[in-house]
Amino acid sequence: MFEEKDRHLCIICSKGTLDMAYPGLVLANAALMEGIDATLFFTFWGLDMITKSKMTHLKVSPIGNPSMGIPNAVGGLPGMTNIATTMMKREIHKLDFPDIDEFLEMIVDAGGKLYACKMSMDMMHLDGEDLFDGVKAVVGATEFMEMSEDAQILFI
Amino acid sequence: MFEEKDRHLCIICSKGTLDMAYPGLVLANAALMEGIDATLFFTFWGLDMITKSKMTHLKVSPIGNPSMGIPNAVGGLPGMTNIATTMMKREIHKLDFPDIDEFLEMIVDAGGKLYACKMSMDMMHLDGEDLFDGVKAVVGATEFMEMSEDAQILFI
Amino acid sequence: MFEEKDRHLCIICSKGTLDMAYPGLVLANAALMEGIDATLFFTFWGLDMITKSKMTHLKVSPIGNPSMGIPNAVGGLPGMTNIATTMMKREIHKLDFPDIDEFLEMIVDAGGKLYACKMSMDMMHLDGEDLFDGVKAVVGATEFMEMSEDAQILFI
Repeated sequence: MFEEKDRHLCIICSKGTLDMAYPGLVLANAALMEGIDATLFFTFWGLDMITKSKMTHLKVSPIGNPSMGIPNAVGGLPGMTNIATTMMKREIHKLDFPDIDEFLEMIVDAGGKLYACKMSMDMMHLDGEDLFDGVKAVVGATEFMEMSEDAQILFI
Repeated sequence: MFEEKDRHLCIICSKGTLDMAYPGLVLANAALMEGIDATLFFTFWGLDMITKSKMTHLKVSPIGNPSMGIPNAVGGLPGMTNIATTMMKREIHKLDFPDIDEFLEMIVDAGGKLYACKMSMDMMHLDGEDLFDGVKAVVGATEFMEMSEDAQILFI
Repeated sequence: MFEEKDRHLCIICSKGTLDMAYPGLVLANAALMEGIDATLFFTFWGLDMITKSKMTHLKVSPIGNPSMGIPNAVGGLPGMTNIATTMMKREIHKLDFPDIDEFLEMIVDAGGKLYACKMSMDMMHLDGEDLFDGVKAVVGATEFMEMSEDAQILFI
């Protein structure tokens, strides 16, 4: 006999910026809509995406990214991060995409599993109470390796 | 009976900088040379790589990347982005690597498939006419999930 | 007969910052501890991680990353990169994680394989003598494609 494994997408979210938070959520959501298992593992700056005090305040950086089209000498001025962030949020809302917290809730409701990286939690002095309720557990890298067997793994 | 699937590399290109554009193209090209199917999916800033008005003007950021070896207080001065970009392009040309548009053409000629992300197109107010001719279609994230079944997926 | 392939994790390291160097090393180390083959392929800025003169001096950027919590107008001041780097290193040491060079040595001792990207070496005018002793070979992208067959590939 030969049993086929279910397809599984494991996304490691390591960034805490608005522009790099959405791709992981959009892909996880798309996977779930297609009946594919989806696991999100939040590490390093990616913990901001599931930290209650930060997850609704993610920002986009106006500097260090020439694709923003803002010269660094301008982008570095006080207030520019908020301006760039407000502009991007407006575009995201126009497309009817939910905010990060709502999006994560949708993903959890659809069966997606969220995990936080233990090492990063320790490094940033966070504990379980700081995290979004939908997070299933805090796990180490070896546990992540076990849960991502046979998965397609993305690092964002 | 047991049919072996062809190996397939799916690369999600999410960055619009010169230094993060080449890795995806080099890997896709290498895959095709080895007889491996290659699909490139352009999303977020990665759309710059296939936007006609931008694809030949990608830049590298002199700030926010300590590996550049330029102090941020210097890298942020007007004109530094162009200087850093010119220097990197010179090195790329010395190695006989083609410009982005030529490189994409080579990849398409070798059988590589290029797709643009619908959500990002909408967010950046782009339509099909803005895109490089070699792009096969504009697709959503669920379609991407379907075309990447059994693939090795990279997120750049 | 049906022979099962060993699980294999291939990590492409393309960044030379402290915060993006550790995730690849932590994952490779975790894989090896679980009996999974691990290959690290260093390309572009990631070469800094295995360049003898740079690998112990990796820095974190205080600007261009809103998750750092430092306004760009402050983060861009002279000396701020060193301050941010010192702070992050202190947190990493508190958690008993080794420095980059020691960490790579542990990975090699545990059977991990390190490769440098030929194109990037040429671009940055590096030769074999500039590299950490534990690097197995300098290889091209097509060779990387061959060694990553059947692997889970991550791009960091």
